Amino acid sequence: MISKETVNRVLKFKEDRDWDKFHSPANLAKSISIEANELLECFQWCDEDFDIEDVKEELADVMVYCIDMLDKLGLDADDIINAKMSKNEIKYPVEKARGKSTKYNRL
Amino acid sequence: MISKETVNRVLKFKEDRDWDKFHSPANLAKSISIEANELLECFQWCDEDFDIEDVKEELADVMVYCIDMLDKLGLDADDIINAKMSKNEIKYPVEKARGKSTKYNRL
Amino acid sequence: MISKETVNRVLKFKEDRDWDKFHSPANLAKSISIEANELLECFQWCDEDFDIEDVKEELADVMVYCIDMLDKLGLDADDIINAKMSKNEIKYPVEKARGKSTKYNRL
Amino acid sequence: MISKETVNRVLKFKEDRDWDKFHSPANLAKSISIEANELLECFQWCDEDFDIEDVKEELADVMVYCIDMLDKLGLDADDIINAKMSKNEIKYPVEKARGKSTKYNRL
Repeated sequence: MISKETVNRVLKFKEDRDWDKFHSPANLAKSISIEANELLECFQWCDEDFDIEDVKEELADVMVYCIDMLDKLGLDADDIINAKMSKNEIKYPVEKARGKSTKYNRL
Repeated sequence: MISKETVNRVLKFKEDRDWDKFHSPANLAKSISIEANELLECFQWCDEDFDIEDVKEELADVMVYCIDMLDKLGLDADDIINAKMSKNEIKYPVEKARGKSTKYNRL
Repeated sequence: MISKETVNRVLKFKEDRDWDKFHSPANLAKSISIEANELLECFQWCDEDFDIEDVKEELADVMVYCIDMLDKLGLDADDIINAKMSKNEIKYPVEKARGKSTKYNRL
Repeated sequence: MISKETVNRVLKFKEDRDWDKFHSPANLAKSISIEANELLECFQWCDEDFDIEDVKEELADVMVYCIDMLDKLGLDADDIINAKMSKNEIKYPVEKARGKSTKYNRL
């Protein structure tokens, strides 16, 4: 899915440019939101008729900054995703949540 | 980094709850932005003094929706990240970009 | 603050271009978030050293889409802001909230 | 539209709580994005079937932080909106833009 080679390329890109000094956790959080909104812009006026090449680039940008943030905070993606999925599985029991988009606190 | 097992768990969670019907690309783009801003909220009033447990959960949420979007569009994370990194490496040549946070179009 | 003339200019701009058909409440919500993140981009890597001309343009864009959304939903800005301030004044009592950035549910 | 009384109430709320110290332009930009995404959440899974009371509150929150930012930077809403509209009217000529959601750089 995301291989070690890809992660290393993203981190090397940043190191080669001496950009780690800009990559505070707060700045990376801003960057993830900014890129997420460039992705959202692909769907600004129409939900269906989007440019898949733009979507691929903007989604990649979101993930690149996620990789940078994991690195900055010394976190492992598998670890934090699995910890969150364990919570989600309890918050959204299959029998209650099936087929509904209701938020857990209103289920 | 993100293993096949983790991806499968995220996708099974959605399938078990019959949520694929809500997961249009546009809705997933909104969701990535919404979660990115819950992550940003960890740094709303202070850049340094954040709750690492909250950050882990919100960053995981962003990545979960990225996994859902990749699945929905039949995209491979390694592919699109590497394609974007190839572009970034050209847009930000080491000798020009080193140590600077300037955007490529102003370098 | 925001005069009737300004509002009318914003609404006429949209009408002259026959853009009302794109302005669903959902699309306007996306647009407010997208413009809010162009504003955030002014502060992406540095909190202090921002370009005030860029900030003025992006903040104006956010407000323009707010005006469009108020119009679309038949809402009055003064009404909804005052209703929300009444709630905020109760959620954040002066004696408890003074000098603290704590969220109301943790006060 | 937004009266001087409403603006004064918003500013007094902040002063009474000694919150101006948290209201750096960067923190306000984050806050506008965060609230914009709470507004977007009203439309996360469905564009049509939204809760108007939630929309009113979240849209008010966006505007409250816009008012705080204008105050912080000593800007006038009418001024910056009108300056931006003058630019928009040139970027999107009626004859070219009419009925189309195309971005100005692709018109």
